[in-house]
Parts: sequence; C-alpha cells; structure tokens
Amino acid sequence: MSLKNILLRTINQKNKYINLAATAVKINQEQYNHRDQNNKYKKTVATALFSSVLIGTVLAEKSKNNKKELKENNEENTCGAGEKRPDLPTYRAEEISKHNSKKSFWVTYKNGVYDVTSFLPSHPGGDQIMNAGGYSIEPFWNVYGMHKTKEIYALLESYRIGNLHEDDMVDLSDEELWVKEPIRDKRLIVKTSKPFNAEIPAKLQVAHFDTPNELFYVRQHMPVPELDSSEHRVRVTIKNGQTVTREFSLQQLDQFPRTAVRAALMCAGNRRSEMNEQVKPVKGISWQGGAISNAVWEGVLLIDVLKACGLEDTSTAGKHVIFTGSDIDATGVNFSTSIPLEQALNPKNRILLATHMNGAVLPPDHGYPLRVIVPGAPAVRSVKWLESITISKDESSSHWHQKDYRSFNASKTWETADFASAPPIYSLPVTSAICDPAHGDTVTAKNGVVEIRGYAYSGGGAKILRVDISPDCGKTWVQAEEMQSDDAPPQQHYAWTLWTARIPVSKGQKELELWAKATDSNFNTQPERFNDIWNIRGVLSNAYHRIKVQIKH
Amino acid sequence: MSLKNILLRTINQKNKYINLAATAVKINQEQYNHRDQNNKYKKTVATALFSSVLIGTVLAEKSKNNKKELKENNEENTCGAGEKRPDLPTYRAEEISKHNSKKSFWVTYKNGVYDVTSFLPSHPGGDQIMNAGGYSIEPFWNVYGMHKTKEIYALLESYRIGNLHEDDMVDLSDEELWVKEPIRDKRLIVKTSKPFNAEIPAKLQVAHFDTPNELFYVRQHMPVPELDSSEHRVRVTIKNGQTVTREFSLQQLDQFPRTAVRAALMCAGNRRSEMNEQVKPVKGISWQGGAISNAVWEGVLLIDVLKACGLEDTSTAGKHVIFTGSDIDATGVNFSTSIPLEQALNPKNRILLATHMNGAVLPPDHGYPLRVIVPGAPAVRSVKWLESITISKDESSSHWHQKDYRSFNASKTWETADFASAPPIYSLPVTSAICDPAHGDTVTAKNGVVEIRGYAYSGGGAKILRVDISPDCGKTWVQAEEMQSDDAPPQQHYAWTLWTARIPVSKGQKELELWAKATDSNFNTQPERFNDIWNIRGVLSNAYHRIKVQIKH
Repeated sequence: MSLKNILLRTINQKNKYINLAATAVKINQEQYNHRDQNNKYKKTVATALFSSVLIGTVLAEKSKNNKKELKENNEENTCGAGEKRPDLPTYRAEEISKHNSKKSFWVTYKNGVYDVTSFLPSHPGGDQIMNAGGYSIEPFWNVYGMHKTKEIYALLESYRIGNLHEDDMVDLSDEELWVKEPIRDKRLIVKTSKPFNAEIPAKLQVAHFDTPNELFYVRQHMPVPELDSSEHRVRVTIKNGQTVTREFSLQQLDQFPRTAVRAALMCAGNRRSEMNEQVKPVKGISWQGGAISNAVWEGVLLIDVLKACGLEDTSTAGKHVIFTGSDIDATGVNFSTSIPLEQALNPKNRILLATHMNGAVLPPDHGYPLRVIVPGAPAVRSVKWLESITISKDESSSHWHQKDYRSFNASKTWETADFASAPPIYSLPVTSAICDPAHGDTVTAKNGVVEIRGYAYSGGGAKILRVDISPDCGKTWVQAEEMQSDDAPPQQHYAWTLWTARIPVSKGQKELELWAKATDSNFNTQPERFNDIWNIRGVLSNAYHRIKVQIKH
Repeated sequence: MSLKNILLRTINQKNKYINLAATAVKINQEQYNHRDQNNKYKKTVATALFSSVLIGTVLAEKSKNNKKELKENNEENTCGAGEKRPDLPTYRAEEISKHNSKKSFWVTYKNGVYDVTSFLPSHPGGDQIMNAGGYSIEPFWNVYGMHKTKEIYALLESYRIGNLHEDDMVDLSDEELWVKEPIRDKRLIVKTSKPFNAEIPAKLQVAHFDTPNELFYVRQHMPVPELDSSEHRVRVTIKNGQTVTREFSLQQLDQFPRTAVRAALMCAGNRRSEMNEQVKPVKGISWQGGAISNAVWEGVLLIDVLKACGLEDTSTAGKHVIFTGSDIDATGVNFSTSIPLEQALNPKNRILLATHMNGAVLPPDHGYPLRVIVPGAPAVRSVKWLESITISKDESSSHWHQKDYRSFNASKTWETADFASAPPIYSLPVTSAICDPAHGDTVTAKNGVVEIRGYAYSGGGAKILRVDISPDCGKTWVQAEEMQSDDAPPQQHYAWTLWTARIPVSKGQKELELWAKATDSNFNTQPERFNDIWNIRGVLSNAYHRIKVQIKH
C-alpha cells in the first residue's frame, strides 16, 4: 500500500492512527488483537515509532520557571520549523512517499519537507527511523514528545528542501492520545507532559519515609492505558520444550500467599541534570534528584506464580523473564523489558506482582491494576500495567530493553557505543542527595549548627551504612547521625534511607558548600565527580551531591 | 600471684610462656584445654596479648629492597631501644610489677623500664594493653611482630625512666614460637615474617586465573597451628532455648554433598600502601595490590551442616554464626570472627567448609585441614583451621571482630572512632589493579599499542562488567577488551576478573600514566582518589590504581 493511500485513508477514517500503524510497520496481528480490552486504548494511540534512545534533554535546567519552560520547549516553541517557505519548491505526498529508503529518505513536518538521508547514520535509534520514511514525523513525535526541543526542531529545519502541497496536509494533532491521562498532584514537578514525567520536590521526599502515592515520582514512556481490574488478565508463557501458557485474573492471583515489600523505585536517570550541568549534555529527561520515591508494595511473589505454572529450578541458566505492559507505542508494540531468570528465582530478591501501593489500590500512573516490582533494580524493570510474563532464552527484544538503560564509559559516543554488547542495567549504584535545604536556600544556624536532610539508596539489596557530609570541600567529613531505614535482613535492603546531619558552622560564616556521599554495605561509595562516569545516556549519575546555601545566624 | 612470682616461675620452667598466660590473664581453663591436639601447639605460643588493632605499618614501602628492609625494620633495627642507660636509675622486677594500674603503668623492654601511664588513653587497643602492666612487652610483641617498627621503638624509648636490674633479666626470645612454620615459596613478597604475611607478586597474579596454592597470598594473625586431619573435629553449637552441640570429624563432614566454589579471597587491607602514600599513614600491613588471589575451593556447604544440626529457618533474625580457628593468641584466646546468620543461610552465598584448594588438600598456611570460605566477603571471615561454629545472638566478642575490620570516614581519628557502633565489613567494594606492567617499568609499544593486564574484583557476588583505562589522566577512557571471569549465575560472581587492555600511544611518547577503574554489576565504580575514603585502619582502599611507565618504541 502506498503512502498516498495510507494518507487518504487516514484523512477519511476516525481511527486513523491505528490503521496506519498496522499497515506501515506490519505489526503482528495476533499480538495486536490479543487483548480486547485494549482495543479502545489502542485506537487512541498514535502511530509514531521513534527510538526512545533519542529521548532528548527536554528542559534546559538553567531556567527557574518550570512551567514557562515547558510551554516554551515542549509544547510551543518550534523555532518556525514547518512554516511555509515560498523560496522552496512544493511536493505532493505521493512523490514524498517514494523517498523511504536509505538511498533517499524524506520526511514532512507541517508544511515542511526534509531530506534527512545524510542524517540516517547518526540516528541514535538506528533503523527505527525507517518507519517514518516518506511520511510526517508528527505522529511519531506526538508520542515521544521529548523530541520537541528547540535544538531538534532547528536540526530538522537544517534539512529543509521544500513544502508539502496544501491538498495533502493532514491534521495530525495529538489531543486524542492524551485525553484519558490521570489527574496529577499539582506539587509534582513536571519534566515532560506527553508522556507524563514528573519528579517529587526534594523537600517532600524527606517529609515521609513512605512517599504518599500522589507524590510518588512518575515516569511514563507512553500514554497511560485505561484498564479494568475485573477484566484484566496476566498471561504466563513458559517455553521449555513445549510451550505452557496460563492466564490469571487478579482474583486468581489472589490465591497465592500475599506479601509486602518496602522498596524504593529509582529511575536509572535520576540526578541526570547534574551530569548535564557539571560535564556536558546527555540525552534523557533532565531529572534532578526527584526520580526516586519509596513505598510499601503488596501483592504475590513472582516466584510462586512461576512455580505454579510448572517452572522448574533446573535449566534456568541463561534464561530471562520478559515482562510486558499494556502501554503501547505508536506501532502497536507493547512496552517490555526483561531480567535474568536466575535473578527472578532468588527468593531474596522478593520480586512481586503488585496490586497495592502503601495500602491503596495502585493508581493508574503506577500500573493499575497490576505491575511488577523488582526491588533493588532500576525502576524500568518494574513493568506497569503488566499483561504478560514470558520465560525465554532471549532478553526482551524491545527497543526499551535493547537500546536504552545500558551504560558506557565516558569516551563512548553515539557513534561508537555498541548497545548490543553493553550489559543491561539490572541494579543501581549507591547514591545520595541533600533534599533540605535546597541549593541556593538561606538556612538558619541554631547554636552554631545547620541541620540538613536527605536520602541515600543503593541497589541490589545493599544497606546504606553511612552518609558523610563535607562542609569544606572534602577537608573534613561529618557523619549523619539519624538514619531512618527499613529493618530488612542482610542483602535485602530495598527501601531508601532518610538521614539527618548536623553541620557545625563558624560565627561569621555566610556561605556553606555541602557535599554528600553515602557508603553501602558492600562499602561502595559514590565517585567524587561526574566527569569519569559521564555517559551518553546520562544514567547512573551518582557522584557526590553538592549544593551551596547562605547562612543566617 | 605477683608478677615477681610469675617471672621467677617463667625462668625456672621450660614451658614458661603458657603458664604465664594462664595466670596473668585468667583465661578460661575449659576453653583452654578443650582440644588435646592443640596443647602441643599452645605450649609453644607466647603470652603476648596486644590488640591487633595496633598492627603497625611494618614496611616503609618507599624502599625497593624488600629483604634488607625486613631485616632493618622488623627484626633488627630497634633504634637502640632497651639498651643500658647509665644516666638513669635501676629498678627491681618486684618494684616494677606494682605499676600495673591506670594510675601508674610501667613496662620493660630488654634493659629498659618505661612509664607509659600517659600513653594509655591513646592506645588504639584500649584496655588490652593492661595485660602487659608491670611486665616486659617483649613476649607480647613477639607474637604481634608488627609492632617492631622504628617508629614504635622510638615512641617507647621516649617514655624511658630507668634500667631493669640485671638479676631480673629473662630470656624472652621468640624462636620457640615459630619453629613449626611452613616452608613458603620464595617468590612471595614477605611483608612481616612473624606472623607470616606475604603478597603474591603482581605479574604472577595475572599469570593464572586460579592462583597456584604456593603463590596464594598469606595473611596470618598468629603462628600457624599444627593440626592432624585424622584427629581434627569441628564442633557446632546452636543456642536455641536449649543448647545443641555436635562434633564432626572430617570423615563425618564428607557425608554431606561435596561442592566447589570458585572464589577470590581478598584482605580488607589490600592496596593499603597506596592510601598510605597518597594521603597519610594508616595502621596495618602495607599491602600493595597482592593481598588477593583466586582459587577453586571444595568442601561441604555450611548451610547443610547447620540444618543437619537442627537449625531451623525461623528465628534466625539478628543472629550470628561465630567461626573459631585453632590459631590462638598469647592469652590462649582462639582467633574468631562472625557473620550474620541470615547471610550464612542464603544458599546463593555458597558458604563452604572447605578441605581442598585447587584440587589439593589445603596447605597449612591456608587452613589445613578445614577452613570456612565466605565468598564475596573480606578474607578475614573465611576462618582457617576451623574448630568451632556457634550460632549466637551476639557477634563474635574477639578483638579481631570487635576492634578491627571496621571502617570510618576520613575525619575519624583513633580517639574519635567508635568501633562498637561501626558495622563490621562483611562485603568488599569494587576494585582493580594494573599488574603488568608495574609502576616504573619500561614497556615496548607494538604497532603503536601498549598491552596491559590486571585484575578486578567486587564483593557480595557482583560481577565485573567493565574495566576502563585512562592513558591521559581521565581525558579519555579505553575499555579493556579481554575479560576472563567465572561463569557463575547473576549475583554469585565470587571469582576475580583478569583483563587485558590495549592502549594506543603516539609515536614520540616516552612516558605513560595509566589509571584503572572497574565497574561492577551494581554499576558501582571506584572513587577517583584515596583522600575521601582514607580511614585510620587503611581498609577498603579501592580508589583508581595509577602507575607510570616508560615507553620503548
């Protein structure tokens, strides 16, 4: 089917996006239709596919006005990209559609036509860009809204070759995709609105050991799916010679012993903004320290469900558990990632299929009605809106698993980094942050002492043993006195630690630079600076946290 | 019994040391006599008790001539301490013996009499020094030979008040203690000879993935006990309401399923010399990078033995497993340390009661005929010459457990560090070292490339994912290409990793500074410098390894 036909149909049909998706990227119909309850949702999802690897730095962290910035960068400021250019020739959609190969690769944006052939080799997402060949990038970018930065619009415009014929213009606005999004707490600091990504303000992090659900940071890759708990099923597939498949309703899952795990979830990109600012730009949501929160998760143990499905302890070596969510991208592909099966089968890892969060039913933003919780792992492995669990000899083939959440040394570029040979991030290094006061605050010294509070966390079940604060750029260190942590057994410390330190200040002192570093039960500590842990994706950004405050006596 | 009587008896009896020990520190006779096979050994052990916390920096690492240095520092150079001083008064042993309280505390060394009352509060080992009150320090220092440094002799001499009467002089030479020591491989680099502590040369570390037994680094706290495998028993005591005790011969242990674990053992003080040189002096054997080696250990699983003794999975929370060796200190106290019971009961931790090392019966230096192997923990927990296992609600009360192998922040001094509140080191942070070439070597560049080799290791079962080398002080990083590691399941990587990196050098380049850092599967990395991880004991010394080499083209 030619692009022209697709475009014509797109104009004429109300469920235009999904048809385009099904045709353009030839998705597996079986997979596509397997869940009736999702169809309604799927029909509202756009057809964009663009590697999530290229999630741009949305916000220049320098500016203080978050809301203004969002509007500027994310929603409105396109730097004039796609406006009519009378100086350039006009092309028909049919002509454009022919330029969909590596030899000649055109895309459109609003009125603009762009020859991006020479850009293809530099595209971080590799061949996934091919799905947009000869067509508009708008529906793709509508789902991956993070592309909508000044820099990327300017880059696009630099490839401009002409204008799209007016008769071939299509309304590709994205409103339909996002109308069902949950209502969110106004105190969250929004980093991107479509998809919704927002951090918890630092001072609210240390206000509760278990973060209230409405303040828990939110990390979405796509629109939030609308699911019905009474109809929801999770399908377990074990390929072991013959394939065994079983489906569980939530009621059926409830037959397994219920248990609770207190665990922090942290995005692998938490504190990325510091790496951005202190070294050089990286790609990804520019999180400050607010992409971590703590909760008590309740549900059933994954290991119990797998064993009930006949999984045996033998022949597990080298296999993987693939978790798939109901959130789908523009091509109809569900979000998916995996963890090693042997990690999943270690009872001490306490991996849950969770239905509740801090005593309440999971909110839609956190995976209602069912999600995985992989304690001690980066939050991306704790797949939300869980609809399938597959034991496989291969890792998840999704681009979220294959092309993201991996790390490289500081010298690797997008050109030299080899995602295939880089191991996925299945655990997180020790980190800490000062939450109260914030950088730039004025604090009051009481009896010559300034009190500061923050969090510390380490992945893989490691406990935080110590947090040390330097008030003089490393000359001396003051150990935090109060440490609030979980009471879990050794190697199963999945919650964060909240700490309080009392820093002596001298009488006339007006300014104070504070450095924080934590030590975990493997006695790993944080690196001093971000320089040598810098990486193209800005993940694992765990160097000392440094702030400056003014002192009032 | 007065000191004079003890001294008189000491002179008159051939087994002088052991009687003095039994009397002077009132050791528990039952404990002392419980193993007949040890008596012979015990009778040869001196009566010194001095906190192992004060294990001094034996060797000034600066000098190149190891043998000369040993002789100078460890065995002969006493800076004239204890020589006759005609300018000072003479005291009788009876008079000296009265000065054994905190109000007045004297000791002797050869001819010298010293009033060290004012030193007592600064003694790192705390009250343990009281055992030497009114008596000679020689037998104490004979066992803890690490005290025999120029600096400590000079410190001692600064407290000089007089001379010991010639009639009261006793031969306190230590030859008898050490005559049964094993014969060691001459290639080991001896750090202290009594007790024997020696590291493996760096180039031999990377010569074999499993270190040959005779090259495995040696860390002793006391003389090596002489044990008979046919008579050896290990006693398991479980206090759980009523106390259950069971004894196992090695033959009886062999009834349990035998298994093998490939694991590196590393001293918590490995690479201490770099902390010494790059920041400021610390107390402890000044290991370079050679206090780590790798082997395949065979034996039975601790968990199987404990379960056979009736240990139940319930009510294990907060308890400890105390391991006691047959090596005894000067007061008849056996070496002992503990680990948390919940750590011991995690099957993935694979804790062994080992009888074999790389296919051969354990050598005497490595615990013949039975030792514990706690993979992923500092080697001190892998107790050698194992004679008892006790489940207890308390950690081991030994001073090796209570007063050593703990860590503090860089600002804590011997005066401010609180050992009781500092958690014991039960796991080790990620580390690495360049082994070949060594610092100062001249290397040949082949086709513009210099090849370097080294090891990397991380505790707690973490795998080494990457080793990165910087040839330009952090500007760029080259990832090591060849990584030799074990094939263990996730979170059970207990072996070290040997790596090879190829560093491009420019044509005229004459010198090369190399930095090495490793990243483990929790994505923890090494700190850049030693400054902020410096600690009074010099443990956990895992900052980047840095060397300089000359290049020949």
